[in-house]
Amino acid sequence: MTDRTPREIEALIALMARLPGLGPRSARRAVLHLLTRREGLMAPLAQAMARVALAARDCAVCGNIGTSEICPICADPARATAEICVVEQVSDLWAMERAGVFRGRYHVLGGTLSALDGVTPDSLRIPALVDRVAAEGVTEVILALNATVEGATTAHYLAEALAETGASVTSLAQGVPVGGELDYLDDGTIGAALRARRRM
Amino acid sequence: MTDRTPREIEALIALMARLPGLGPRSARRAVLHLLTRREGLMAPLAQAMARVALAARDCAVCGNIGTSEICPICADPARATAEICVVEQVSDLWAMERAGVFRGRYHVLGGTLSALDGVTPDSLRIPALVDRVAAEGVTEVILALNATVEGATTAHYLAEALAETGASVTSLAQGVPVGGELDYLDDGTIGAALRARRRM
Repeated sequence: MTDRTPREIEALIALMARLPGLGPRSARRAVLHLLTRREGLMAPLAQAMARVALAARDCAVCGNIGTSEICPICADPARATAEICVVEQVSDLWAMERAGVFRGRYHVLGGTLSALDGVTPDSLRIPALVDRVAAEGVTEVILALNATVEGATTAHYLAEALAETGASVTSLAQGVPVGGELDYLDDGTIGAALRARRRM
Repeated sequence: MTDRTPREIEALIALMARLPGLGPRSARRAVLHLLTRREGLMAPLAQAMARVALAARDCAVCGNIGTSEICPICADPARATAEICVVEQVSDLWAMERAGVFRGRYHVLGGTLSALDGVTPDSLRIPALVDRVAAEGVTEVILALNATVEGATTAHYLAEALAETGASVTSLAQGVPVGGELDYLDDGTIGAALRARRRM
């Protein structure tokens, strides 16, 4: 409704447009959808969001986001303490958990090193990681960083920083994704897969 | 994080997934985005949404959604009262307003007639429309319904229902969209454009 939309509604659209995957246009559509479902969807959603905004906190151990001081993974005695999987963001931790293949614990860095953006080891959770590895008797640190230049730089830094702890530092394999077709893969991936080829 | 995500966060993701344009996966991404911006985005968004859910109401005259008893368009003395543009949904009204070409008032039906879904004239705002046209001295009712079977059925019904009011009933022209290329248009549109051809 452009200039005729009430101020409160425009403010809501502007905030919604800051969500990933929603532009100004789809934010407007989403708000319209909510406006026609005020009792059934809009009010419950506002409540749920306020509740989470109040309850959510970073896990004091690993940096995962949950609603308790220590996240359910760090609090779970069934998870192996000898293996720590290092990820950049909480979203990566969630992706690893969805895959359901890792039974150790995590450490969320909160980003990657970047001299350009002033991201130093201290502004990530790197000192805390080194402390954990030394204190918790960790034997393997698995680096599950993104396969980007920043991820690789951070991985190299971590490997050096963790060298003195004696833990072995590994990283996720690079290669052809499951179901991937060579014809659609970029040259970098094909090269990495060839270099890491394995005997049948 | 699947089974390990706190209940409150899963509830929020489920509600977000009901927004148009967000599936379960992108709702999870959006919530993660919010979780890492709890002060800056999540709390303000929850507040803005609660405020709108409380303040929003349907305009008593036209069915537009705003924050006052009578919407700004119906309350604007500069808008012509002799012309009413009939739309299916509030989103259509907003689209018309964005185009900025109509200076009359609106009437939002709230849907289209559908015997199958039990949508009768009384469950749309059709009786209110007939009353308005008679009471407000409306001379032209412009039907801006979607160019669908349901839209056309509803338009025919409205033309009959409004016949006794004496107002002239028109509808948006069908034809080639501005910037449209014939090669990409469906046959129905080309047919409609040919039948409605105009002298140069």
